[in-house]
Amino acid sequence: MDFRIIARDASCHARRGRLRTAHGTFDTPVFMPVGTQASVKSLSPDELEDLGAHIILGNTYHLLLRPGAERVARLGGLHRFMHWNRSILTDSGGFQVFSLARINRIEEDGVVFQSHIDGARHAITPETSMECQMQLGSDIAMCFDECTAYPVTYEYARESMLRTVRWAARSKEAHTLPEQSLFGIVQGGVFCDLRRDCLERLVETGFDGYALGSLSVGESKEEMLSVLEAVAPGLPAASPRYVMGVGTPEDLVEGVRCGVDMFDCVMPTRNARNGMLFTVRGGIQIKNSRYADDDRPIEEGCSCYTCRRFSRAYLRHLFLARELLAYRLNTLHNLHYYLGLMAAMREAIEANAFDRWRRSFYLDRENREPAEE
Amino acid sequence: MDFRIIARDASCHARRGRLRTAHGTFDTPVFMPVGTQASVKSLSPDELEDLGAHIILGNTYHLLLRPGAERVARLGGLHRFMHWNRSILTDSGGFQVFSLARINRIEEDGVVFQSHIDGARHAITPETSMECQMQLGSDIAMCFDECTAYPVTYEYARESMLRTVRWAARSKEAHTLPEQSLFGIVQGGVFCDLRRDCLERLVETGFDGYALGSLSVGESKEEMLSVLEAVAPGLPAASPRYVMGVGTPEDLVEGVRCGVDMFDCVMPTRNARNGMLFTVRGGIQIKNSRYADDDRPIEEGCSCYTCRRFSRAYLRHLFLARELLAYRLNTLHNLHYYLGLMAAMREAIEANAFDRWRRSFYLDRENREPAEE
Repeated sequence: MDFRIIARDASCHARRGRLRTAHGTFDTPVFMPVGTQASVKSLSPDELEDLGAHIILGNTYHLLLRPGAERVARLGGLHRFMHWNRSILTDSGGFQVFSLARINRIEEDGVVFQSHIDGARHAITPETSMECQMQLGSDIAMCFDECTAYPVTYEYARESMLRTVRWAARSKEAHTLPEQSLFGIVQGGVFCDLRRDCLERLVETGFDGYALGSLSVGESKEEMLSVLEAVAPGLPAASPRYVMGVGTPEDLVEGVRCGVDMFDCVMPTRNARNGMLFTVRGGIQIKNSRYADDDRPIEEGCSCYTCRRFSRAYLRHLFLARELLAYRLNTLHNLHYYLGLMAAMREAIEANAFDRWRRSFYLDRENREPAEE
Repeated sequence: MDFRIIARDASCHARRGRLRTAHGTFDTPVFMPVGTQASVKSLSPDELEDLGAHIILGNTYHLLLRPGAERVARLGGLHRFMHWNRSILTDSGGFQVFSLARINRIEEDGVVFQSHIDGARHAITPETSMECQMQLGSDIAMCFDECTAYPVTYEYARESMLRTVRWAARSKEAHTLPEQSLFGIVQGGVFCDLRRDCLERLVETGFDGYALGSLSVGESKEEMLSVLEAVAPGLPAASPRYVMGVGTPEDLVEGVRCGVDMFDCVMPTRNARNGMLFTVRGGIQIKNSRYADDDRPIEEGCSCYTCRRFSRAYLRHLFLARELLAYRLNTLHNLHYYLGLMAAMREAIEANAFDRWRRSFYLDRENREPAEE
């Protein structure tokens, strides 16, 4: 992996970088569409490429349960399995174990849990997480961590953070695939001193990149922002910085302002499947009856596949009729919006005009569609 | 509309034609993918074009309930609404009224029924069916008919057929859109003399094309084939001949042998969504565990989008994980198979070699995949 900063914005911590993995080079700040089960829901790999996606996320938890990481390895690895030749980041399985599975025990060794699919008992440890991610053959692997819930006591957050640090060291020890990078995950809940303590310990071990985990897990926007502001700018400047599972367009803008380089979130894809579509003026609900005869595209001037062909009236019809095409067309638009937002921020940073750009971003959003207020 | 026969096969009634509508010219025999609710389920219009589809079917019953034919008319007609610029045939609504809705009354005037969506009461008559189809703006409209159930008595089949004939005359009377063709529908159940009687009466009224309705509604393969053989070759030779809602690959081959020019059926698209995939050797169930590690495409040598990219193992995974992409990739393959089958038959007819081709078609199918027998 090679990471270079090619521009900085003088008004804030925002930075414009370029990251090279075993499967290509892409510009940061970057948004990674989520391809949970070896598929970014409803899209083909070609469509992702056409959208300008350069790196997607795969979920180790889902893939180890189905179809199994060993099977993916036998079939040539995740890239070949899903016919995606650009970069892939896999998470460690930690987040889904804590959010989807039924946890039986958290032990020093790892976590024993029951599958959300069939209730079968599985164990995941730093070593097995690394093994799975190496079998999947992603370009960037994540350390196995404990996703700290919200709210928790300071004492629990500290205990959990220290376990994550020990698991990170074991993850690094077990990780033996040279062409795969390994990122550490900073935990500590909403307690900024714990976050800083965690970071210091992780840096001592040394990773290719650093992520903030357990954000957007129930804490308020203010709490999340204060962690971002207190911790993100202090992540090692020469390495990629990644905020996991975040977030809204506003969250991405604030993350970039704080110097974050990488984001992933199900929001654009999941909201698409629920009929919520992003525009520069905010979200619209396509099922709203005011769009029944609306011949305009989702967003005037939008160059996405969907907006160049289909009206709000047609998209509303497809959505209400539960036509499969609805989910794809909505997803194409929302990812186009998210990836376009990142491109606009990269451009603003290069022009050293991020602050002005950010003000105009918020100004656009004050002018919402009347029915969507 | 313009229809020309450009080749005939000497061994049977098979014929190779070319049909021109207001939206383009295509070769027959032709298969029309079904786009029930203004969408061929899971596919974009571009994908349909890439598959080589030249005409699709829209269901008047579904479209009049949702989004409403008047609304489609206000939005510029069905072609513009769904962004499909090639030909469209709409059915009359008759079949779905009889198969999906709760019928309240069949009267001389038409049918009173309750919507399968919300139970709302609607009436459909020859006149309203024509009005809807003219509002949709399809290239080919169908007369409003009574889909005769199976089994029924000879007496009921005759009564129903005579009503269909009267409704056909009223349909023609109400049909005033010159660029839209109108086809008559031959009814009469499995009673060949009733079918011939019906045809004679319809020809007296005069239509742009003639269809056989109420086939594949529960009768045996033998009964269907005997109606096909007795009636299809007698449909007016200079007009397109259409067998509605049929069928399996074998049904298409036998239909073509009997001189049929047009087919539609949900089988390739619906089976795709159920994981049943067509190959020259017969169907396979992609969820079968023997495909779990199968790195081969659905069909070796198949040039479809899916087979050029994805393995059976990946398709099985997507299907079991209920990933939306599964339905699309399966649909692309199955429609490629159906449209390829029609292309092969057209070529065989042009070469005056349909009979030899047909024998090799059946020979291939004797050599099924072991697990699928």
